Amino acid sequence: MSLMTAEEFKKSLQKMKVNAYWDGKKVETLSAHPVTRSVVEATAKLYELAADPQQEGVMTATSHLTGEKINRNLHVNRSTGDLERRADMALLTSQTLGTCNYRCVGCDALNALASVTVEMDRVKGTEYSRRLNAFLQRTQEKDLAVSGAVTDAKGDRAKRILEGDPDMYVHIVERRSDGIVVRGAKMHQSGAFCAHETLVIPGGALRKGEEDYAVAFAVPNSAKGITYVLQYNALSAEREKAEDIFYLGNPRFGQRETCLMVFDDVFIPAENVFMRGEVDFAGALIQRFAKTHRMNCGGACKVGFADIIIGAAQLAAEYAGTEKAPHVREAITHMVRISEASHACAIAAAVKGKEEPPGSGVFMPDDLFGNVAKISTAHGFWQIMALAGDIAGGLVVTMPSFQELKNPATKGYVEKYLKAAVPAEKRMRITKVLQNWTAGLHGPGTWHGAGSTQAQMISLHRVANLEAKKRIAKRIAGIED
Amino acid sequence: MSLMTAEEFKKSLQKMKVNAYWDGKKVETLSAHPVTRSVVEATAKLYELAADPQQEGVMTATSHLTGEKINRNLHVNRSTGDLERRADMALLTSQTLGTCNYRCVGCDALNALASVTVEMDRVKGTEYSRRLNAFLQRTQEKDLAVSGAVTDAKGDRAKRILEGDPDMYVHIVERRSDGIVVRGAKMHQSGAFCAHETLVIPGGALRKGEEDYAVAFAVPNSAKGITYVLQYNALSAEREKAEDIFYLGNPRFGQRETCLMVFDDVFIPAENVFMRGEVDFAGALIQRFAKTHRMNCGGACKVGFADIIIGAAQLAAEYAGTEKAPHVREAITHMVRISEASHACAIAAAVKGKEEPPGSGVFMPDDLFGNVAKISTAHGFWQIMALAGDIAGGLVVTMPSFQELKNPATKGYVEKYLKAAVPAEKRMRITKVLQNWTAGLHGPGTWHGAGSTQAQMISLHRVANLEAKKRIAKRIAGIED
Amino acid sequence: MSLMTAEEFKKSLQKMKVNAYWDGKKVETLSAHPVTRSVVEATAKLYELAADPQQEGVMTATSHLTGEKINRNLHVNRSTGDLERRADMALLTSQTLGTCNYRCVGCDALNALASVTVEMDRVKGTEYSRRLNAFLQRTQEKDLAVSGAVTDAKGDRAKRILEGDPDMYVHIVERRSDGIVVRGAKMHQSGAFCAHETLVIPGGALRKGEEDYAVAFAVPNSAKGITYVLQYNALSAEREKAEDIFYLGNPRFGQRETCLMVFDDVFIPAENVFMRGEVDFAGALIQRFAKTHRMNCGGACKVGFADIIIGAAQLAAEYAGTEKAPHVREAITHMVRISEASHACAIAAAVKGKEEPPGSGVFMPDDLFGNVAKISTAHGFWQIMALAGDIAGGLVVTMPSFQELKNPATKGYVEKYLKAAVPAEKRMRITKVLQNWTAGLHGPGTWHGAGSTQAQMISLHRVANLEAKKRIAKRIAGIED
Amino acid sequence: MSLMTAEEFKKSLQKMKVNAYWDGKKVETLSAHPVTRSVVEATAKLYELAADPQQEGVMTATSHLTGEKINRNLHVNRSTGDLERRADMALLTSQTLGTCNYRCVGCDALNALASVTVEMDRVKGTEYSRRLNAFLQRTQEKDLAVSGAVTDAKGDRAKRILEGDPDMYVHIVERRSDGIVVRGAKMHQSGAFCAHETLVIPGGALRKGEEDYAVAFAVPNSAKGITYVLQYNALSAEREKAEDIFYLGNPRFGQRETCLMVFDDVFIPAENVFMRGEVDFAGALIQRFAKTHRMNCGGACKVGFADIIIGAAQLAAEYAGTEKAPHVREAITHMVRISEASHACAIAAAVKGKEEPPGSGVFMPDDLFGNVAKISTAHGFWQIMALAGDIAGGLVVTMPSFQELKNPATKGYVEKYLKAAVPAEKRMRITKVLQNWTAGLHGPGTWHGAGSTQAQMISLHRVANLEAKKRIAKRIAGIED
Repeated sequence: MSLMTAEEFKKSLQKMKVNAYWDGKKVETLSAHPVTRSVVEATAKLYELAADPQQEGVMTATSHLTGEKINRNLHVNRSTGDLERRADMALLTSQTLGTCNYRCVGCDALNALASVTVEMDRVKGTEYSRRLNAFLQRTQEKDLAVSGAVTDAKGDRAKRILEGDPDMYVHIVERRSDGIVVRGAKMHQSGAFCAHETLVIPGGALRKGEEDYAVAFAVPNSAKGITYVLQYNALSAEREKAEDIFYLGNPRFGQRETCLMVFDDVFIPAENVFMRGEVDFAGALIQRFAKTHRMNCGGACKVGFADIIIGAAQLAAEYAGTEKAPHVREAITHMVRISEASHACAIAAAVKGKEEPPGSGVFMPDDLFGNVAKISTAHGFWQIMALAGDIAGGLVVTMPSFQELKNPATKGYVEKYLKAAVPAEKRMRITKVLQNWTAGLHGPGTWHGAGSTQAQMISLHRVANLEAKKRIAKRIAGIED
Repeated sequence: MSLMTAEEFKKSLQKMKVNAYWDGKKVETLSAHPVTRSVVEATAKLYELAADPQQEGVMTATSHLTGEKINRNLHVNRSTGDLERRADMALLTSQTLGTCNYRCVGCDALNALASVTVEMDRVKGTEYSRRLNAFLQRTQEKDLAVSGAVTDAKGDRAKRILEGDPDMYVHIVERRSDGIVVRGAKMHQSGAFCAHETLVIPGGALRKGEEDYAVAFAVPNSAKGITYVLQYNALSAEREKAEDIFYLGNPRFGQRETCLMVFDDVFIPAENVFMRGEVDFAGALIQRFAKTHRMNCGGACKVGFADIIIGAAQLAAEYAGTEKAPHVREAITHMVRISEASHACAIAAAVKGKEEPPGSGVFMPDDLFGNVAKISTAHGFWQIMALAGDIAGGLVVTMPSFQELKNPATKGYVEKYLKAAVPAEKRMRITKVLQNWTAGLHGPGTWHGAGSTQAQMISLHRVANLEAKKRIAKRIAGIED
Repeated sequence: MSLMTAEEFKKSLQKMKVNAYWDGKKVETLSAHPVTRSVVEATAKLYELAADPQQEGVMTATSHLTGEKINRNLHVNRSTGDLERRADMALLTSQTLGTCNYRCVGCDALNALASVTVEMDRVKGTEYSRRLNAFLQRTQEKDLAVSGAVTDAKGDRAKRILEGDPDMYVHIVERRSDGIVVRGAKMHQSGAFCAHETLVIPGGALRKGEEDYAVAFAVPNSAKGITYVLQYNALSAEREKAEDIFYLGNPRFGQRETCLMVFDDVFIPAENVFMRGEVDFAGALIQRFAKTHRMNCGGACKVGFADIIIGAAQLAAEYAGTEKAPHVREAITHMVRISEASHACAIAAAVKGKEEPPGSGVFMPDDLFGNVAKISTAHGFWQIMALAGDIAGGLVVTMPSFQELKNPATKGYVEKYLKAAVPAEKRMRITKVLQNWTAGLHGPGTWHGAGSTQAQMISLHRVANLEAKKRIAKRIAGIED
Repeated sequence: MSLMTAEEFKKSLQKMKVNAYWDGKKVETLSAHPVTRSVVEATAKLYELAADPQQEGVMTATSHLTGEKINRNLHVNRSTGDLERRADMALLTSQTLGTCNYRCVGCDALNALASVTVEMDRVKGTEYSRRLNAFLQRTQEKDLAVSGAVTDAKGDRAKRILEGDPDMYVHIVERRSDGIVVRGAKMHQSGAFCAHETLVIPGGALRKGEEDYAVAFAVPNSAKGITYVLQYNALSAEREKAEDIFYLGNPRFGQRETCLMVFDDVFIPAENVFMRGEVDFAGALIQRFAKTHRMNCGGACKVGFADIIIGAAQLAAEYAGTEKAPHVREAITHMVRISEASHACAIAAAVKGKEEPPGSGVFMPDDLFGNVAKISTAHGFWQIMALAGDIAGGLVVTMPSFQELKNPATKGYVEKYLKAAVPAEKRMRITKVLQNWTAGLHGPGTWHGAGSTQAQMISLHRVANLEAKKRIAKRIAGIED
């Protein structure tokens, strides 16, 4: 067994037939379409990074099942050191790609399942752990890209699951001896259509009576009944139209591309089912997914993005000749402060992590610091965007097309009037990068990654150990009761 | 004389030949090009609003030169009531267009010139007031759209004007008996290419020795030597490509479209020159422009935008069934609070306005409140965007194309899974509006409109009357000196 | 009739016997006790200001009942101009006193009653207006200091009025032909014990069944059954102990001194009762009080305090030699920005005020801007304190006693080591002023003046006109329904 | 050798004669004076904690000099684990005392000296390490309380050291063969007068020519020539006057009590001098002190305080019956979020710590995370105060004296009207605790502890590794240079 190379990954996609649509049209070849190609390139770069000896400790790990070297995205964390490396991986991939590690959600779903299947087996006598390990061993051996799917369509939020259209949450519509048939849709799926398989887990805690919704499973992304409806927005159009990817804000790796992933009566063989009706464990499953994912998303992934933004803002200031102005230095420093405070939360979440459940060998980060990481980033990223937008100057909104640099009628003007301490093209390049980050999708994207901030606030209130704090305060107050 | 109608405005453009480029190609017909058409439509709508009897008090005024009814965009403010109406106009046009009143900068430049030309004439014995009034009477009679041009290209900010490329600031390259020849470029020009004329003023205070740069004038936008290089970004591409404008976030009126406006040795007849070498008045001119423009931009224009955002966020919440959640109500309330605090600053700036210089009949808003309006908005608009982005949900980033609603393979899925308390299309429409505002150009756009926040902070420090505050504090402290 | 002088006010207090307690002991003579004396001095200064010809327009008005000149604190606002002057008065008294205008709440309660009694009389056929006008004429003629009492003790907030101890809200315990007997307590009463009379109104909206609680009345502060329990905190102790008031942060006028005002079966003659059981008007009464008081409290009173803080911070910087540092200039500018944004809200609330109810002649400020003023200040004042605390330096916490300047063992050291650009004593004086503002009671005080921020958020949501904003957003979205 | 007990500590102070002044009078007996007693009690409690077996790992360490168990405050950190425990100690002492660990600055000064003396010895051939170790072994053996002194008086900040009064910075006035004589004063010294010895280091980086100011040494606090002028403010007066310490906000341990520590020609024997003229190492010394102290102060000490505040606020809400209100839950959650983000920074600073200089065996925390910890706390503590002040309600400002609970005239009223879900006294107790934290000295205190925020911003900019971020940004932009 050996790790898949970037080239092998690209080839593997050619064999995979996914049923994907973009802007109302079928995507025939993932690596040929201008938008999905950016996802292919980003995922291929992940394989490339794993092969880079300098990144070995971060991007690869040793399988606890086989002892072989595996991609860290398929690794179950076995120590706090593993948790630290997991966050390091998120940081590195964000710094390198400027977009999603599209294997990230799958990795965190895998870890949540590794933990909760042990508990279910203990309590319910099920054999989910064995199945999950089999799945894991198979994907580790082939080094497959595994995506994760969590958020349901939900529909009218004023209604509970069973009150509205039953299909608004992914659920079992048929139970067979050899497996189950599922229906529903998962939203906001980052790059699922370019992964080999997807791990699906419920999007929230469940109650008695909602057993059909307590379902977790793995499924190949080309399975019958699965349809992907890809996101489409201004950046999609810009990429489709661009003559040269260097006219874009993130030329090679693009935006985070997501999709609506529809399950229209998809058959899942029993061997790939990791939860089937255990409503009393759905809460634990989503919570453990959340605690891992919030650490990575809030305290590492977005920190890597911030590093790009800070670097670009510093360059923009140097290119414009303003880098020594006190307010520019202050803005840069605040960006660092905000970003590194979130980073610290990921480090703390990792080093304060614990085996969960005890005896399982699976390590989970600290829930408090994970939630703090995500909430801090959710607020902080807007501030970072704002500070960068201030440094970037009006040009970040008003810059003309790179095509003008080839237009005889305007080339001279643009080169003359957009030059500053560096030539115009260089300034435009870095301004375009900043346009992507300060005048694009990243504000709302950061709010909603790893769940809404409100969900994290509720989690944080729950884990805040207010009783201990009350005891401390009473001691100071001299209140004895 | 009567006001121009929207139809007449569109026709007038057909006769105007502007030398404009977009994405490396010449724009042949402004009203035919998908992007420039949005500017034509927005400007036409301004003419339509002025003809609406309900908006008469806001959109029109009485010329102090002729006593005739004129468009308020060509009016010189003669009272604090006029200043209030001026801000009301900015509010109304923003609420109605969701984009620039493209005549706004011209209006504020006009008022600044009306004030400063009186002063120059008094001190220097010039006749700039007469010229300006002649220009004004002509444009009022024809009801022309007059744009304003302020910000120079500047280049390397570490250098003063005379240290770098002399052309980085618009300046006189030849003085003739019948006029002047100017060279340079103005950046971030909102919609100049769709106005009839442009008023050009210096972008900053000047020193002795920089006389060539102390130049203000009016020029027809089709004048020989003027070239427009239009902005280009993702939203440009999306609009160009859109089969139906209703797929867009602001279907009819679009983004604020700006341009680089190049003056390549343009001849300006003496009669249209309103400042020529008076370096000692350049500071006053930009400062008076700023105080008017900051009131309007900060305390009215962006408040109108905020009203759209708040309305859309409230609708999005109602459509999703979340409008009663405490944190949603709180977010909506904070958005209102932030926006209306800026609005209050415009009202205060207007009612505390004063005649300046005394005897001129020209009224200027209060400088302190104008600057506070703009700084408050600059920070507040990011917060409003963030709060709206939170309410809007992940869909604001991940929504698919409206084309899917016509795609037989996906139409059913999208209609099913994106519906909530309302059908999917309606939800997508309002989500698209919010995408425009929370995941688009508005953050940096708001920072830099009416100058950078740093420039406003410096102005505010200057007008803050710290001496009076020190006296108050000393009295409390019992310090006598 | 003429206005009372400061001296006459002090004498009038000598005749008044209030039943007041401070630190467990009876206050025998208000003007002799070190703490209550500061309230006497502050109130006397209000009378002095009213006699100052320079402040005539601000501090006095013309009675609509008698046409005589009266103190503005007893004036019913009859125009938006009156509202502007009312806010100007709040600004001036705060700048001058650095503490409460102790007649302020009474003034706003008076205006609320003037408006709502007209409505009650119209609907219920009562004669409350006549009674109120009689009260008003009497107090205007004598120029009495009238305090206002609003906030009930409330007790356990998880219970509605009728569920808990019935006395936690002021209410009628006996209805007689000649009047009523009331019981309960009002909290947080600013300086009531040094006013002549108090206007009492319900602290919140009421429901059917709670008629006993719908009670408004005037009462002399020395009435039988009234007891004042004064606030006590560290600043109280410091003032009690100070050998010289110049050792204190606000030497002459002190802190805002408040009290618990207990009504232990107090008889109120019918003529002084302005609401008796009209539960359906209690909501309107508190709301109109709130809208007036929030304008004044949020947008003027605290702005006056901020002026002191900004002035003192600027002096502290100059005394330390740091005033030119960019971050100090920025901090000063932000303080101005924050404060003046609230100030603008008061101006806007006043100029957008309206007659309410129509035909009553009573003018009320705009509710939206009033609430925005208060919420902005509630948050902003903490920021201003923080920025001032930053500029003030560690000395603001660690400074030694002024007594050391008389101590032969330390005098030389303190004079040597605390001098900077000015002698040590001067620096200590201004530092002491800043200690008062940045390390004292002002943060929570500002939160809770004019009601909690949460109450204001709820009001603001109610008056925000979301329907109009939804219409605007739908028009942009192209949604027709 | 064994650790000193609390009792032994108190006894040791009786033998120590410090020359201390408070409010203009000499402090005769530290443990008898109401204010200095709180410092004695707090320090004694530190000795008690070290004797508590449950806290052994946190409060004690193993001396690398003797292998004996020592108080952690006298320990030189030898690993990242030591750094983690150091931060844990700061957290624990803050939670327990609600005031200063008065041995904290000494501990961090010790560590900075341990690191820099090694470097000086290597480069300069000095023997400072040996001297420091001798000092250390002696203080460890006796388990002495060692304070630290850093901040100079400074005077007019617009002047460099040598331009103003030479005494404004502690410096050598005489060099003898057996030692040096020093003069000057250190400000803001937390509790020095109740420690046995003090470590003095320069307050900033130095230049050639300023050799006399490059001086570090240890000195007994009762040494001839040392005078302490203690801080005095409202809380001092309240404590002096309090009949019962339970009337106070932090009954037993009090405020952080500081002093001006004057060195009036104090002789320091050569053996106690650890730097003498090495200007090129002064910067490193203060920087290493800062990085340790900022981690502890920002990310642990204030987090412990926040735990008290959060606990008290939660209790206050429960006592008032408001703890289930959404805005209260949100406020509590934000307080936790803000505090724990700073806490995470300390954890990250510790685990990313490094041996410095290599081979020295001395471990220093990561500078970036240390600075972020302190800046985050400086801003965040104000927010925590504000949120707690909001929950605490107006009572936090307006509460009457505890003496009223013994006053027959008011006792009944206070008990009746201040009760809520708990009796009045209990509610007053917790409100008093919150008064201490939200309406006291803590805002400015937190700003200036461990240096001003501006100093930390400058440090952060220096260590932010902008070059690496620029490389990352260039790679994304496709800029090759």
